[in-house]
Amino acid sequence: MLRRGFQVAVILGHHGTLPGATHLLPRFNPASAFGSSTESLVSRFCQEMTKGKNYALPNASWGPDMLSLYHEFLEKTKTSGWVRVPSFRSNRDHIQGFKLPLDLSANSDKSDWRLFTRCIEREGQGYEYVIFFQPSEKKSICLFQPGPYLEGVPGFVHGGSLAALIDETFSKTAYLSGEGLLTVNFNIRFKNLIPLGSLAVLNVNVEKIEDQKMYLSCVTQSRDQQTVYAKASGTFLQMHLEKDSSRQ
Amino acid sequence: MLRRGFQVAVILGHHGTLPGATHLLPRFNPASAFGSSTESLVSRFCQEMTKGKNYALPNASWGPDMLSLYHEFLEKTKTSGWVRVPSFRSNRDHIQGFKLPLDLSANSDKSDWRLFTRCIEREGQGYEYVIFFQPSEKKSICLFQPGPYLEGVPGFVHGGSLAALIDETFSKTAYLSGEGLLTVNFNIRFKNLIPLGSLAVLNVNVEKIEDQKMYLSCVTQSRDQQTVYAKASGTFLQMHLEKDSSRQ
Repeated sequence: MLRRGFQVAVILGHHGTLPGATHLLPRFNPASAFGSSTESLVSRFCQEMTKGKNYALPNASWGPDMLSLYHEFLEKTKTSGWVRVPSFRSNRDHIQGFKLPLDLSANSDKSDWRLFTRCIEREGQGYEYVIFFQPSEKKSICLFQPGPYLEGVPGFVHGGSLAALIDETFSKTAYLSGEGLLTVNFNIRFKNLIPLGSLAVLNVNVEKIEDQKMYLSCVTQSRDQQTVYAKASGTFLQMHLEKDSSRQ
Repeated sequence: MLRRGFQVAVILGHHGTLPGATHLLPRFNPASAFGSSTESLVSRFCQEMTKGKNYALPNASWGPDMLSLYHEFLEKTKTSGWVRVPSFRSNRDHIQGFKLPLDLSANSDKSDWRLFTRCIEREGQGYEYVIFFQPSEKKSICLFQPGPYLEGVPGFVHGGSLAALIDETFSKTAYLSGEGLLTVNFNIRFKNLIPLGSLAVLNVNVEKIEDQKMYLSCVTQSRDQQTVYAKASGTFLQMHLEKDSSRQ
C-alpha cells in the first residue's frame, strides 16, 4: 500500500525538470510519526492574515439560509471548539513556513495563481463557501451556495463543480487532521441535482487513518437534511512537510 | 438497477417547487429504445452556431503542444470521421430543440449562466480545452491546457478541476453516444500531478451500455503517453429527451 506513496514522491521529483523548479519536495518520510498535533496545525493554518482577502467571510451575495447557518457555526467557534477555516486566493498564502513541492519564489508573479475553488472573483457568481473544522472530532462542515457560473444541466450545479469543492474540503480537513496532503482517489455518487442559488451542506468526516493514508467521507445535503445530493469518499496521502525556517 | 433512474426522475419533479420552474422534465421513459442514432445526435449537437463564441477554437493562449495536437485531430475530422465538439458558454445553447428539466425561459437572464468548465472568461487563465468525438467507436479525446486559476498544490492542477473536466467530457461523450445525460457516479484515481500550463490528454471510451446506463472510462496522460496523470470511470443515466417542436 505504501508503494503508491513513494511513487508520488518520485514523480514529483520528475517535475524538477520544469522551468523554475529547484526544490523536489515534499519529502516523503515513511518513518515520520506525523508529529504535528492537530492543535498546532490548526493554529498555524487557521491564522487570520492581515493581508489578502479572506473569502470565508460573508458578502452581499450570501442568502438568508447561508448567513443564518454561518452565524450558527460562528457561535460554535466560541462555545464548542469549532474553527472557521480561512480561505485565501491561493494555497500559497496558507502554507508559508513549510517547504513546498516546488520553489515557488522562482515561479513567477503570485497574482497569476488562484486556488481553483476561488477562481471566480465576482461575488455570488461562482463558489460561495465557508469551511468550519472541529479538531477534536476530526470533522468539517462546508456551507456551499453555488452561483450561476457553476452550471451543468441548466438551472443546476455541474457535478464536477460539486466534486471539486468536496475534494477541496477533504484536502483542508485531511491537512488539519494530520497532514493529509495529496488526493489518491476520490469517489462520488450523485443522488439529486442541486439547484443553483440554493444552500448545500457538506458533512465531512475522517473515517480512519491507516498506513499513512487518511480515509474521508462526505454527505452533501440540504440544510433540513431531507434531500441528499451526493455521497463521496476520498483517500489522502499523509506527507510530512518539513518546516522551512527561511520562509518563516 | 433501474430504480435509481426513476428516483432521479421523481426528484427532478420535486424541483418543480422552485420559483420559475414550470416543467418537470426530462421525462424518463424506460420503454424507450433510445432511438436517436449517434449520427443524428452528432449532427444536432455539433452544429456550429452563428451566434455565440465557440470556445473549442484556438486562441492566443494555446501553447505549441496544444496547437499541434489540435491540428492533428482537425485533420482527422476530414479523413477519419472524428468530429470537433463545439463548446459554448452554456449547455442551454446546445440543447435547444429538446425539452429541458426546467422551463428556462422563465428562469431569468441567459447571460447570468455559464457552463462550469467555461466559467473563467480570460483566455489562458482557466480551462482551455477542446473535445474531439469519434462516433463509430464511441470515444473522445479532450486536449486540456490548464491555466493558473486551476491551482491546487502550488504549481499544479487542482484534482477537483481535473475531475470536473473529465466529468464534462464524459457527459458530452455519453450524450453523443446515446443520450447519456446525468452522472450517477464518478471515480478517479490520481497518479501524478499535472503542472499548470502543460498539456494533458484525456482519452475517454464508452465501455458498455447496459440497463439504460452508460459506463465510461478515462485515462489522462501526457502527450507522449509516458506519464499517466489519472484514471477515472463514470456511470451515466440514459434519458430520452423529447423533442420540443415549440423551441425549434
